[in-house]
Amino acid sequence: MQVVKDEELMIDTKGGVTSPKGFQAGGMFCGIRKKKLDLGYIYSSVPATAAGVYTLNQFRAAPLLVTKESIEQDKKLQAILVNSGIANACTGEAGLQDAYEMRNVFAEALKLSPHYVGVASTGVIGVALPMDRIVEGANDIVKPDHLGVEKFQEAILTTDTCVKHISVECEIDGNKVVIGGAAKGSGMIHPNMATMLGFVTTDAKIDYKNLDFALRNVTNNTFNMITVDGDTSTNDMVLVLANGEAENNPLTVNHPQWHVFQQALNKVCSELAKKIARDGEGATKLIEVIVKNAPTKQSAQIIGKSIISSNLVKAAMYGADANWGRIVSAIGNSGVKINPSSLKVSLGPIEVVSKGLPIPFSEEEAKLYLLQEDISIIVNLGIGEEKATAWGCDLTYDYVKINASYRT
Amino acid sequence: MQVVKDEELMIDTKGGVTSPKGFQAGGMFCGIRKKKLDLGYIYSSVPATAAGVYTLNQFRAAPLLVTKESIEQDKKLQAILVNSGIANACTGEAGLQDAYEMRNVFAEALKLSPHYVGVASTGVIGVALPMDRIVEGANDIVKPDHLGVEKFQEAILTTDTCVKHISVECEIDGNKVVIGGAAKGSGMIHPNMATMLGFVTTDAKIDYKNLDFALRNVTNNTFNMITVDGDTSTNDMVLVLANGEAENNPLTVNHPQWHVFQQALNKVCSELAKKIARDGEGATKLIEVIVKNAPTKQSAQIIGKSIISSNLVKAAMYGADANWGRIVSAIGNSGVKINPSSLKVSLGPIEVVSKGLPIPFSEEEAKLYLLQEDISIIVNLGIGEEKATAWGCDLTYDYVKINASYRT
Repeated sequence: MQVVKDEELMIDTKGGVTSPKGFQAGGMFCGIRKKKLDLGYIYSSVPATAAGVYTLNQFRAAPLLVTKESIEQDKKLQAILVNSGIANACTGEAGLQDAYEMRNVFAEALKLSPHYVGVASTGVIGVALPMDRIVEGANDIVKPDHLGVEKFQEAILTTDTCVKHISVECEIDGNKVVIGGAAKGSGMIHPNMATMLGFVTTDAKIDYKNLDFALRNVTNNTFNMITVDGDTSTNDMVLVLANGEAENNPLTVNHPQWHVFQQALNKVCSELAKKIARDGEGATKLIEVIVKNAPTKQSAQIIGKSIISSNLVKAAMYGADANWGRIVSAIGNSGVKINPSSLKVSLGPIEVVSKGLPIPFSEEEAKLYLLQEDISIIVNLGIGEEKATAWGCDLTYDYVKINASYRT
Repeated sequence: MQVVKDEELMIDTKGGVTSPKGFQAGGMFCGIRKKKLDLGYIYSSVPATAAGVYTLNQFRAAPLLVTKESIEQDKKLQAILVNSGIANACTGEAGLQDAYEMRNVFAEALKLSPHYVGVASTGVIGVALPMDRIVEGANDIVKPDHLGVEKFQEAILTTDTCVKHISVECEIDGNKVVIGGAAKGSGMIHPNMATMLGFVTTDAKIDYKNLDFALRNVTNNTFNMITVDGDTSTNDMVLVLANGEAENNPLTVNHPQWHVFQQALNKVCSELAKKIARDGEGATKLIEVIVKNAPTKQSAQIIGKSIISSNLVKAAMYGADANWGRIVSAIGNSGVKINPSSLKVSLGPIEVVSKGLPIPFSEEEAKLYLLQEDISIIVNLGIGEEKATAWGCDLTYDYVKINASYRT
């Protein structure tokens, strides 16, 4: 496979879901949260090919069911309405009707067919949406004063401490193609989707089948490889909208520049995923775990997740303690058969385990490295060719503080 | 199956591994830890039938390999030597030789065949045992001044804040049979063994096959159903020694009072397991999760562990926050297929979810309940007859504090 260097992708850290042609977004305060923006939307000037990936939690929240149904009808969406503060999860039949109403009211405000609208919610579980405010907000939000991608980025947050967005530009068939994205994360983040919402827009021309394939592929290597606390929420969803305004030849897996699109999409999603991991509840640093020379990609992913999910590893990283024993123990617990005597572990540039045994290293140097805000744990299994990367954050006093009293 | 009521088992909360006939134990400071007892032993006046269960972590520590080998030779042990402070794990071939030497030196001091001796270690991973101190200690510890079951109970601890011991008396064939136990736990506790050491002694007469069967059976319902932080250590081991001095007719699964022995053993192990969970690093309370009306015992166990392993649930319990949404989410994530609309959840006596939906409850009453030191989460799946109980503790500031700087 051809590989595009990162340098060939034009990354715009200020970009977002309105960077591709033909998209607008906005946000407002509709009265769910306290004084914070709590309702946001994305709108495409034309119906856009749409694909989604959804939480594997069995208590899948109502908005996901409704959005999935919308997409299934025509494989297209033209608008998405998102609220924060209340998740509309574990709300039964009444919650499902609320999600339909949220969709239908926004469709009406935009003069769209209901199935061209998706909805998303994030926040507290088991509480009904205040439908009067949602209805009023859905009608109000389309006014020009609520326009602005920054407002959208803010309106989707819950315990997040910062907005998360990016855009990437690439060239396909000589045309400029842009992919933009916004996300929210924070607690309950774990592989396979977790109070995580991701919205990706692009002006690329691509049909449903190929867009869906690309999204699934990329999600497995990005959003599904982050963890904050090992829990998976009822509301996680990543949606991608492709409105075709870049006028490239339709992208398929056989298109000569398919890999360019795939890599640009991967870049958007991996950057958003890393932003989510770094902003995990109470986190002070981003931890990247790279597992190399694994027998299969899946085994590398399992080991990466086992390390990044270990409370003991996460607490040690918070304390900048080069406690490699916990990393080795997490590898040994992953369930993947390895060869202990071919194992190497490094903390950034500092090798700490070789042939499965500890090797002398400078504790001082290791401490200095681990005090940084971006740290890497590199595991070389020495038993294959495959590789995976997982991202997460440290476990801190503030994580406990935030989660000991989230509802109060 | 006949069931023995708890009242028919005489529980002695002051009892321990020397409560059964023919056992003695002791402990001393040999110089591994700072001013704390760090070497302990158990001795049976005659060779005792012995069985063990060992960690599933692939980096199984050297002392486990040596003890397993000892037991396999003759299915008997007469003595066990345990050190705390250093785990002798990830120490390669040199560590294995150290474990053999530790065993052989103690065997010599007691004038026993080496294969009648087991060894155990707990503490930091990847550091070599100071063999000069171990050798000196192994020779010294058999002196009368180091005798005392309290000293043994203390010598096996690491970050534990209290000793953990119990004994249970029952009657078999008209003879008094006693089972005693001691354990250490604290961090890295998770199902399938985790820096957890359990030592069980009994004067029951029972052969290896039946003792091994009983231990495995009981371990699955007790030690394997606790979690402190989801990590499983390299050194976990539970050993049981049965020296036959009670002179009952040999216990087999066909013995009319087999269930009495099984339940007494279960009581010893479940009490030790609960003591370990309650004393999890930084814990302020014991959380019991009871999963009822499950389709299979295994599915009940998986769901129980999913709940008790959730950082979000654990932090909410620390904050006495009746955040049932996190419990429901953990159930939905367990991977076990359930029927959301038949789900009930209670916090002790307070029902919070029925038919998969939240029901009104007094937040104040819930808070008062959750402020207690012993709390129960009861989950009724409503789709079967099976049941399991899991135990764990809350996630606190102190957990993070302890684990951010364990080595320093």
